[in-house]
Parts: sequence; structure tokens; C-alpha cells
Amino acid sequence: MTNEISFFQNPEGTQEEILEATFYALRQHGYADLTISKIGDEFEKSQSLIYHHYDNKDELLVDLLDYMLEQVESQVPLPNQSPEEYIEIIVDEMFGTNGNNNLEFTQAIIELRAQAAHDDNYGRLFRRSDDFIRKQIARAIRAGVDAGAFDVENPSQTAALFHTVLIGIQTEQITSDEEPIDYTRAEFQRYIENCLFPE
Amino acid sequence: MTNEISFFQNPEGTQEEILEATFYALRQHGYADLTISKIGDEFEKSQSLIYHHYDNKDELLVDLLDYMLEQVESQVPLPNQSPEEYIEIIVDEMFGTNGNNNLEFTQAIIELRAQAAHDDNYGRLFRRSDDFIRKQIARAIRAGVDAGAFDVENPSQTAALFHTVLIGIQTEQITSDEEPIDYTRAEFQRYIENCLFPE
Repeated sequence: MTNEISFFQNPEGTQEEILEATFYALRQHGYADLTISKIGDEFEKSQSLIYHHYDNKDELLVDLLDYMLEQVESQVPLPNQSPEEYIEIIVDEMFGTNGNNNLEFTQAIIELRAQAAHDDNYGRLFRRSDDFIRKQIARAIRAGVDAGAFDVENPSQTAALFHTVLIGIQTEQITSDEEPIDYTRAEFQRYIENCLFPE
Repeated sequence: MTNEISFFQNPEGTQEEILEATFYALRQHGYADLTISKIGDEFEKSQSLIYHHYDNKDELLVDLLDYMLEQVESQVPLPNQSPEEYIEIIVDEMFGTNGNNNLEFTQAIIELRAQAAHDDNYGRLFRRSDDFIRKQIARAIRAGVDAGAFDVENPSQTAALFHTVLIGIQTEQITSDEEPIDYTRAEFQRYIENCLFPE
């Protein structure tokens, strides 16, 4: 999720090199026009190696998605700072203002999420990842409640809205200008002040 | 956006019949596997009529999207009831609990939104529609502020968060179970009570 797509800066082994080539080919051609042959064009080794590992493009893309979602999950901040700092960090992550935003990464994720309507192998991975992120956020909010920093009755409920706004921003970013997203952020900040912090 | 996809119940003329066939073919095959020939299979008249109107599938899908977004826009409630009732109606619309939710309609919309990453003809339509919806909601909130029903400083900002949550729910619905969406709704309701209504 960095500008350099750093998770591919040092691909380890053939498998990761194939996933890297798949990501670049997906970015360039989109899901619909993607073929193993086009992935081969982005791959420095022999195309036959791809066929050795994968039977078809969906098998490959599901593996790529798994890999990408692991990156996303690893970026959900752990609650090892003050609750107030945690909220600041998570909001920066959500709105991509941490310098780590990569629109092409997000676009690829949304394109693969749309595939879940036709192939539940994608859906299964998104459900796992979405649940993980919601639970991480809920855990941090619960810690803040225990510490008396937040006044929230149901941290899972609060985390669910955080997650929906995160996904909404990701989806809006494909098409939107910056202004509406800045507006959403300002209003979300108002929600945090009025609904998370005690009066 | 209704269960019967009522906007196609009485297609008027060949053009609308082509769009109807395109919607059903898109729903069945997905964007990637869609061809004019598969659209022809859903079309009761001669396939040559489709080629008479359209050069390729994207031209046809952009027209379908335009048509679908008009349906979405027409469902944004007008502020011709009390501000409190308006909020209730708009939240029902957002969370698809008005009996008009159609998951397949929403899935098709998200799939076409993902195409905006590769073809700005889709992006242009989404920007127009998103702006329209945000402005309609902002107008209604402003009317509520004027009537003393809401205590909101910047209605456009509030409308932007409503819109992001709407898009987030649409996108999450592709993969999500019901529970997280119910949680989001409960928390969004808490936001409305704390951030829209005066204390």
C-alpha cells in the first residue's frame, strides 16, 4: 500500500515473482483483459513456470489477492499506543494520508472485490480480511474504553462503521475528486469527537 | 433497485430492450466474460440490431450505466417531508431496508465502478451521479438546519459522509454477511443522533 508498492520490492522466489508480474499486468490491463500470456510479459523468467504453478488466471489472482490482503492486514495499526494516537493513525490509514496510499493498489483490490459476485473464492478472502480488520479496530476501541479514553457502548459496532467508511473511501477514490473525500474526513472527525470521546 | 428490477418491466423501444438484455447478460456473465453475442442471447430481436446501435460492449455498458444511475438518482428522496422523516427514509435507502434492495443491481454497479480505473467514460458518469446524490442530501440537511431540526455547520460535509457510507455498504454487500452491516447501521444511527440532532 506504499507508493513504491514496496511489498514487491524484493520478491522472494519464483512464486512471489509471479505474483508481482500478475499485479503489474492486472494494473495495466484490468481483470477483463488479463491473460496468463500478458502476465508472462511482465515476468522475467519463462512463461511455462507460471503454467507450472497455476492452471488459470483466477487461481493466480486469488493467490495475488490473498497476498495483497495480508499486506493490508499487516498495516492495520496495533493498539500499542495511546487510544487517542491510535485513532489518529487509523484515520490517516483510512483516508490514505499517511503517505502510504497507492491508488492503483486500491483499484486492484476493488476490481477483485467486484469479482466476488461471480466467484466466491474471492469473497471468502475478503470476508476473512474484513473480519480481521473489524476485530482489530474493535480491540483497540475496547482498550480505549477500558482506559477511560472512549465512551462507546459497543466497540464492534463502532468498528463496523470505521470499516464501512474505509471501504467507501476506497471505492469512491476510483472515481472521485479529492474534495468530497476531504469533506468525508472532516465529518468523520466530527463523529469521532462526538461519539467516541467522553463529553 | 427493486426486487423485480422494475425499471426493465416495461422496456420502451428497441434501445431499452437492448439495455435490458445487457443488464441480464452482465449479471449472468460478469463484465470480463460479457460479449455482444452473449447480450444477443438475452435479446429477443435480431442481434444485428445491437450492432446497428453500438460498436462495442463498452459503448453499450456506458449507456446501461447511465440508465442505471438515473434510476439510482431518481430514488434519492426529495426533501418534501419533515427533516426527521427524511433522515429515516434516506437511511432505509442506504442500508437497503426499504424492500427495494437488489443485490444484483448493486453488484453490477460496483463492477462498472471498478471499470472506471481503466476507462474514464465510466468515471465521468459516476462523478456526475455521486455529485448529484451528495447535493440532494446536502440540500435536505440544509433545509433541516433552516427549520431548526438539525444542528450541522456544514451540510455538504455531512452529506459527504452519508455518501461514503452508502458506497461502503454497497461494496461490502458484495461479500459481507448481514451482521456487520447491521452493526454499521446501528452506529450510523448513533452518529445521526449525536451529530445531526441538536442536544
